[in-house]
Amino acid sequence: MAETNALDALIQALRRLPGVGVKSAQRMAFHLLQHDRPGAQLLSRALQDAAGHVHHCERCHTFTEDVICSTCLDPRRDHSQLCVVETPADQSALERTNAYKGLYFVLMGKLSPLDGVGPKDIGLKKLFDRASDGLVREVILATNFTAEGEATAHVIAEGLKARGLTPTRLARGVPVGSELEYVDLGTIAHALVDRR
Amino acid sequence: MAETNALDALIQALRRLPGVGVKSAQRMAFHLLQHDRPGAQLLSRALQDAAGHVHHCERCHTFTEDVICSTCLDPRRDHSQLCVVETPADQSALERTNAYKGLYFVLMGKLSPLDGVGPKDIGLKKLFDRASDGLVREVILATNFTAEGEATAHVIAEGLKARGLTPTRLARGVPVGSELEYVDLGTIAHALVDRR
Repeated sequence: MAETNALDALIQALRRLPGVGVKSAQRMAFHLLQHDRPGAQLLSRALQDAAGHVHHCERCHTFTEDVICSTCLDPRRDHSQLCVVETPADQSALERTNAYKGLYFVLMGKLSPLDGVGPKDIGLKKLFDRASDGLVREVILATNFTAEGEATAHVIAEGLKARGLTPTRLARGVPVGSELEYVDLGTIAHALVDRR
Repeated sequence: MAETNALDALIQALRRLPGVGVKSAQRMAFHLLQHDRPGAQLLSRALQDAAGHVHHCERCHTFTEDVICSTCLDPRRDHSQLCVVETPADQSALERTNAYKGLYFVLMGKLSPLDGVGPKDIGLKKLFDRASDGLVREVILATNFTAEGEATAHVIAEGLKARGLTPTRLARGVPVGSELEYVDLGTIAHALVDRR
């Protein structure tokens, strides 16, 4: 498929998408050119639009096209609660539970010293300032329950305590609908320690 | 991640790529916006360029930016051999073997009655005209060895014979480097019938 420059350039550009290797990129380029040229045009414009207009909310750091996102501006939300998540996708998952009515702070990453991601890269200074606005009473740490997510939560919790704020963490335990026999031992041990 | 229209539009557009579901599309959009905005711009331009400039070679139907592709125009190639493949990727695989110096005809698909793909959709009329140019002595059928690829090869072979042309088919047999014990029985049976 080394026939045309435009096609080669498209395959190379598609390879920059996460999880797309050369075979997938070829298949995508072939599909778009052979079966879905309107899709190619649409995707081109959508990329242009998003790269040009989407930036970070000044208050919570999530993606928005405005200066401050609609969640942060919503007067019906509880301004005394601030939930810290790693990504907008995590925020979206929490929103879909309909169980949380407070505000968010989106780290857009997690502490990961091996990848060179330090406190500055995930805006911890900004988070601490945001949490010290006088309205926030509780900071809920909802980073992932992976090694890096736990480390990030730990660092944030220490920083918040030093500023006299109260961090809480999402409960660890047995997932809804699961049978103990098939749950991993670490989870059961944690559920036992955190029993209530 | 339902915060911004541009982001939603990007996720929807990415879902039109083959093999990309909503989670992958979110991950791709997030990656591009957070970590690779130049990549997003590059991909946008590459899509625009390819959708605007790439079309089919008038002679062999493969993707090209010219009226006739460079392979068809190459005077060093053997114009008496015509190899019929399903896709430009298959053509590329054959080219990389360095074992074929003739010309190609790319069907850009395969006969697939269940999907409503008939002889017209893969340009069989055009192939028969192409093969009857007086120069072509042998048509090598290199469609895939799947049910649909075999059916396509069969239909093309019948059409070519009716026009007094000689179709040949890539040899079926045991792949290079494999041990008989682990080769599927259909392949061994074919290799036995086609022994030489």
